[in-house]
Amino acid sequence: MQDKKGRVPSEAVAQATKEALKRRGVTIEDIAEIVYRLQLPYNTNLLMEDCIDSVERVLRKREVQHSVLVGIELDELAEKKKLSEPLQSIIESDEGLFGVDETLALGAVMTYGSIALTTFGYLDKSKIGIIKELDTKIDRSVHTFLDDLVASIAASAASRIAHRFRDLEEDGVAMADTPALVLESSSHAGSDF
Amino acid sequence: MQDKKGRVPSEAVAQATKEALKRRGVTIEDIAEIVYRLQLPYNTNLLMEDCIDSVERVLRKREVQHSVLVGIELDELAEKKKLSEPLQSIIESDEGLFGVDETLALGAVMTYGSIALTTFGYLDKSKIGIIKELDTKIDRSVHTFLDDLVASIAASAASRIAHRFRDLEEDGVAMADTPALVLESSSHAGSDF
Amino acid sequence: MQDKKGRVPSEAVAQATKEALKRRGVTIEDIAEIVYRLQLPYNTNLLMEDCIDSVERVLRKREVQHSVLVGIELDELAEKKKLSEPLQSIIESDEGLFGVDETLALGAVMTYGSIALTTFGYLDKSKIGIIKELDTKIDRSVHTFLDDLVASIAASAASRIAHRFRDLEEDGVAMADTPALVLESSSHAGSDF
Amino acid sequence: MQDKKGRVPSEAVAQATKEALKRRGVTIEDIAEIVYRLQLPYNTNLLMEDCIDSVERVLRKREVQHSVLVGIELDELAEKKKLSEPLQSIIESDEGLFGVDETLALGAVMTYGSIALTTFGYLDKSKIGIIKELDTKIDRSVHTFLDDLVASIAASAASRIAHRFRDLEEDGVAMADTPALVLESSSHAGSDF
Repeated sequence: MQDKKGRVPSEAVAQATKEALKRRGVTIEDIAEIVYRLQLPYNTNLLMEDCIDSVERVLRKREVQHSVLVGIELDELAEKKKLSEPLQSIIESDEGLFGVDETLALGAVMTYGSIALTTFGYLDKSKIGIIKELDTKIDRSVHTFLDDLVASIAASAASRIAHRFRDLEEDGVAMADTPALVLESSSHAGSDF
Repeated sequence: MQDKKGRVPSEAVAQATKEALKRRGVTIEDIAEIVYRLQLPYNTNLLMEDCIDSVERVLRKREVQHSVLVGIELDELAEKKKLSEPLQSIIESDEGLFGVDETLALGAVMTYGSIALTTFGYLDKSKIGIIKELDTKIDRSVHTFLDDLVASIAASAASRIAHRFRDLEEDGVAMADTPALVLESSSHAGSDF
Repeated sequence: MQDKKGRVPSEAVAQATKEALKRRGVTIEDIAEIVYRLQLPYNTNLLMEDCIDSVERVLRKREVQHSVLVGIELDELAEKKKLSEPLQSIIESDEGLFGVDETLALGAVMTYGSIALTTFGYLDKSKIGIIKELDTKIDRSVHTFLDDLVASIAASAASRIAHRFRDLEEDGVAMADTPALVLESSSHAGSDF
Repeated sequence: MQDKKGRVPSEAVAQATKEALKRRGVTIEDIAEIVYRLQLPYNTNLLMEDCIDSVERVLRKREVQHSVLVGIELDELAEKKKLSEPLQSIIESDEGLFGVDETLALGAVMTYGSIALTTFGYLDKSKIGIIKELDTKIDRSVHTFLDDLVASIAASAASRIAHRFRDLEEDGVAMADTPALVLESSSHAGSDF
């Protein structure tokens, strides 16, 4: 799974990230729904389509992909009891003072700025939508990392929309009038990596 | 105001921090009240006295003191219209996409770990107690930085209690049975700088 | 200096950021030179032009602009002795344990990911190029914040090139063969906000 | 390995952290040596004993212990080819753009403040002492996470000494005159969690 320099192609990493989320029961739409609820108060023209686009954009970022792959790997290993002790017990029981799940998610969300970061903190506590579902599962599944990762992706996508909406407002364009493609490629202040 | 090496004594910095908060209308008790509301669900024996102690401990940390002094200085300069444009307008109007207030607060809260950080994000959005009062003032006062700083101190103090409570539980001691002094000097896993 | 919603237009903020750097004696080229020295070992085809483009891109980001404006404002106020004590003494003397300058710079650099962040730490200690000049000025100028901000912009621009170079390699294109415009708009994994 | 609430005792986590480092070939002394090299220029009275004490203190912090346990677990799983693809290849080859190792280490170091954080960035690039040894091993061992974790612990311990040294200076005491125990329990501005 490596190129001549022994590296995994970016496309394979992107693909694996999407598959991992799907395998763990989280769809792009689940995450987009959280984004919609977060951003609607600030932007009444917002469409679910915009939110889906924004989530997909966030998922193209390497930092995000790597965090998702590592976090889900640890959840799955814990589920299969394949971690060594005491880590197995700590992750399996989602200990309150274990913070590596938040740290990993923070590493992804911080690339979207300090507002994304505070939004992540809010989601991490108030747990809406799929985040709540993951958090309250009563079967033997382990989602210690996944709920934080989903909160991180949703917060990033919401922050991304906030920045872009501001850019478009300044250009005198309302979001609903704007085809998704234009929305994506707007090249203003907050919009570039 | 400097020692032989041209440095300001730590005690003077600590004192100035407390005075700055007081001058801006925020008491230790105001902050402790938020801590109490945050931690009570996890710790029914919690006393307001514990929360006040924890806030005071947080305020002894240099990173926290420096953030408070810089943030309040910027608020006060903006109030007096002493900043240059466009910064004056940005801070005075507390622009939604301005994130330096959050960044400054994050610099302080991150020293209390990732759980403090997510708690800060939660407070920054849900604005309880004095944070709400600061945020909704209708006079000409500017609190762009102050509300984030208060959220940061409260989140830090709450996280500090969570870690210490766990330490005491392991020692078989309930928090209410423990004199504040002992509570402060417990020397377990989470408790040392 | 505000629009109908009382906000400063993004263009005005961008312009003010560039002017502030220039006023303090830092050119885009000064920063680009650091980027060039950082990235050349990993990318022998790198051109100064690529580095200048990357610095300009970084300077279009709101988080970066806001950090620069706040940091330079504090340096200039300290120079004019306009800050209140003890902050005036702390910033004027660039105290070793004062960390708000680093925190502010971190808020900007963290949006470029963890590698940008470690590069910033490296520059903050090893002080090459214009960063060294700022740090060793013997006149009465205060650059407590500016040297960290420059390190942050350089680290961000370098990290941005590293990500894009990888994207282009995967597309089978060498950086030197690529017009700057294409380089900027490459739309791969690491390249979008 | 759990208490009545299903939690792992802090003491067991602390013990496991020390054993994990030892198993991977890193001693407390190896890390203390880096701390010594970092801090000696600022503090000519510094003793290796102070550095060892400081490293041990850092290793008592939960955030640090959890990061170490997760990072070493991932290194060891990668060594045994037990991770799923593409994560296995990414971690095994220590890809340049993989940043989760830095993120994990940052989560630990950030609790020691912004100066610890920049010191970490410096160590991450300049790789002195045991960090270099780990980075250049030519056998089949995987140390993708370990070198960053060691840099993080060393940076934290060095920052801790810097803060405490300042406290003691203000108290009019030189570090060498101070028994380690006193050094540990100094209760000034920078010293409490």
